[in-house]
Amino acid sequence: MGRLTGGDPSLLRRINSAVVLHALRDAHTPSLTELVASTGLSRPTVEGVVEGLVASGLVVEAAHCPDETRKQGRPARRYRFHAESGHLLGIEIGVHQVHSVLTDLTGVTKCALGREVPEAADADERLAAIRTTVAELLRRAGVARSSLRAVGVGTPGIVEADGTIRLCTALPGWTGLPLGERLRRSFRCPVLVENDANVAAIAEHWKGVAEGSDDLVFVLAGLSPGAGSLIGGRLHRGFGGAAGEIGALHLLGHEATPELLLSTTGKPLDPLDENAVARVFRLAREGDPVARNAMDRFIRRLVHDVAALVLAIDPEIVVVGGWAAGLDGVLDPLRSQLTRYCLRPPKVALSALGSQAIATGALRLALDHVEEELFTVDSGAPAR
Amino acid sequence: MGRLTGGDPSLLRRINSAVVLHALRDAHTPSLTELVASTGLSRPTVEGVVEGLVASGLVVEAAHCPDETRKQGRPARRYRFHAESGHLLGIEIGVHQVHSVLTDLTGVTKCALGREVPEAADADERLAAIRTTVAELLRRAGVARSSLRAVGVGTPGIVEADGTIRLCTALPGWTGLPLGERLRRSFRCPVLVENDANVAAIAEHWKGVAEGSDDLVFVLAGLSPGAGSLIGGRLHRGFGGAAGEIGALHLLGHEATPELLLSTTGKPLDPLDENAVARVFRLAREGDPVARNAMDRFIRRLVHDVAALVLAIDPEIVVVGGWAAGLDGVLDPLRSQLTRYCLRPPKVALSALGSQAIATGALRLALDHVEEELFTVDSGAPAR
Repeated sequence: MGRLTGGDPSLLRRINSAVVLHALRDAHTPSLTELVASTGLSRPTVEGVVEGLVASGLVVEAAHCPDETRKQGRPARRYRFHAESGHLLGIEIGVHQVHSVLTDLTGVTKCALGREVPEAADADERLAAIRTTVAELLRRAGVARSSLRAVGVGTPGIVEADGTIRLCTALPGWTGLPLGERLRRSFRCPVLVENDANVAAIAEHWKGVAEGSDDLVFVLAGLSPGAGSLIGGRLHRGFGGAAGEIGALHLLGHEATPELLLSTTGKPLDPLDENAVARVFRLAREGDPVARNAMDRFIRRLVHDVAALVLAIDPEIVVVGGWAAGLDGVLDPLRSQLTRYCLRPPKVALSALGSQAIATGALRLALDHVEEELFTVDSGAPAR
Repeated sequence: MGRLTGGDPSLLRRINSAVVLHALRDAHTPSLTELVASTGLSRPTVEGVVEGLVASGLVVEAAHCPDETRKQGRPARRYRFHAESGHLLGIEIGVHQVHSVLTDLTGVTKCALGREVPEAADADERLAAIRTTVAELLRRAGVARSSLRAVGVGTPGIVEADGTIRLCTALPGWTGLPLGERLRRSFRCPVLVENDANVAAIAEHWKGVAEGSDDLVFVLAGLSPGAGSLIGGRLHRGFGGAAGEIGALHLLGHEATPELLLSTTGKPLDPLDENAVARVFRLAREGDPVARNAMDRFIRRLVHDVAALVLAIDPEIVVVGGWAAGLDGVLDPLRSQLTRYCLRPPKVALSALGSQAIATGALRLALDHVEEELFTVDSGAPAR
């Protein structure tokens, strides 16, 4: 049980600040008197805390409502949380593009910007593209870099807690890259790096098709599928951050890779050659029987991988995103096979956020970070 | 933040009782003065609580140590937690047997008893076997049925929160059985029913090979494998209680069932005919090439299923139990394949509890229940 030990006045000040900020965010421009009532703190304490919050820029005095009248004296001062006193960035690093979104401290989007990156770009080129995109985004939004409070990043690969990429086969030169450390050189605020499917799961839970479902699997359906899952509303990273990396399942027993499954020649496709993959899909749509067979193999493999995730985790809902989610004939066989073979079949839904899912989830990481910093009191500690 | 609202004296009494019981269990026969010091409660409060606990039988006065001397007056009264004031049962319901274990309130085993049950027994016969076994166990231990405080049960199948079996292919007549309700007729205490692999995972974490590992998958390797997992030290049941039911994976795309994989004739084995299965294993050990191939197919399938669990969940350790865990050539291919294809391979270990794992985990369910009842204060509520 967490309790105030009473020996740490700075902790007490932080707790009181968090309580007042909470009350400020939840009420419509409260007065000091209203804050005293809603927080249960003494008037001198509230006055001191509000003074400090105004000095820090997090709180501003609200303009007087013209129709507000008081029997005597001047109207009471009113305050509001200053959402524009800081900003947050969410960044998706993909195989073919970088995508970034800028919000205020409540997560309301101010500006978004994407940029294509050659799929063969090495780590330095990709990092340069990120820096250029962010600089342009801040310039367009008229926001100073110093105003950033946290940056969230979604990237393919297994990501360590410090933002180092332990393993990534999708981006050249990415394995072993200290991505968090490299990006922290560009920002004076915390940079949080997470696997792309993991943040997409967070995004669909936050404002996508899985709102209200605390147990979900997000499948990032690309050439080789990856997945992120929330269990009880919390991201399940796994013991080593590798949970959901289901793509390796077909390598066991030397089964075919997706590059081979999709081949119409018996030779594996080049996974970085998007045109080769697109050509198979086009041929299949046009009715080419060999390409159609290749597509069927590819979709069967995806269904098998998703079924493995569902049987292991038993989520309430499976959200399918990534480019392969848009293919004809993906969702229907997925639903029917899961219904047929899973002991408790989950709902299956297409991602609501689509190409925005990863940047949105990355942004949510940054928002969680500042909310924790600003609004959270040590769990179990009484607030007053 | 949980807080005492101050309006509920019975809650306050319960909290004070829990605090005193905690202190009693953690100290060696403390005196009232020592309890006052260790709990921070007032002396009259401690006296009142101890009086109530003694009346309930949960606490007894400890015998005086003969060497204890006091300068003046008679020696202080000392107290101890009365672990024998109640008892707990853990029951495994298996395909071929029922196994039960009886402990005191601290989980120390007093007596254990098993009984074979015909694999074709229907639900009523199996329930009768459980009742007979428990009655005999209580008689041998000299423990009154009224002394039972909680009963934990581990059974194959998907189990609903109320102890109803949603689906079970292993036991005849088990699907749809309100097992919890049926067993509650035999006991006047809470009966907690859980999937067998789930409780085995709990057992290995409690006192088996996964002690200290909070992220583990327990694989119950039988004809068709099932699994239970702990994530962050907590049982992961899944949204519908079906997490880990990986055995269905090979049904997708109409791949072979284990009964067919293990067949040496091309016709599926009867899954309930233990002799047929045993004969294949014996032939394989004797070097019969057809049986050896059947075994290889069976083990490849097990490895594939375990790999699916590991990729989805990314545990620290995989514990393998169940009868197939003891087969030659299961653990080695499992380790080498997982090391080769998993992005972050887990440790792989044989169950330390073996045939005791399920009853032990079921017992732990019962122990958790009484500990929560006796010792837990609402989370976050200050204890004093």
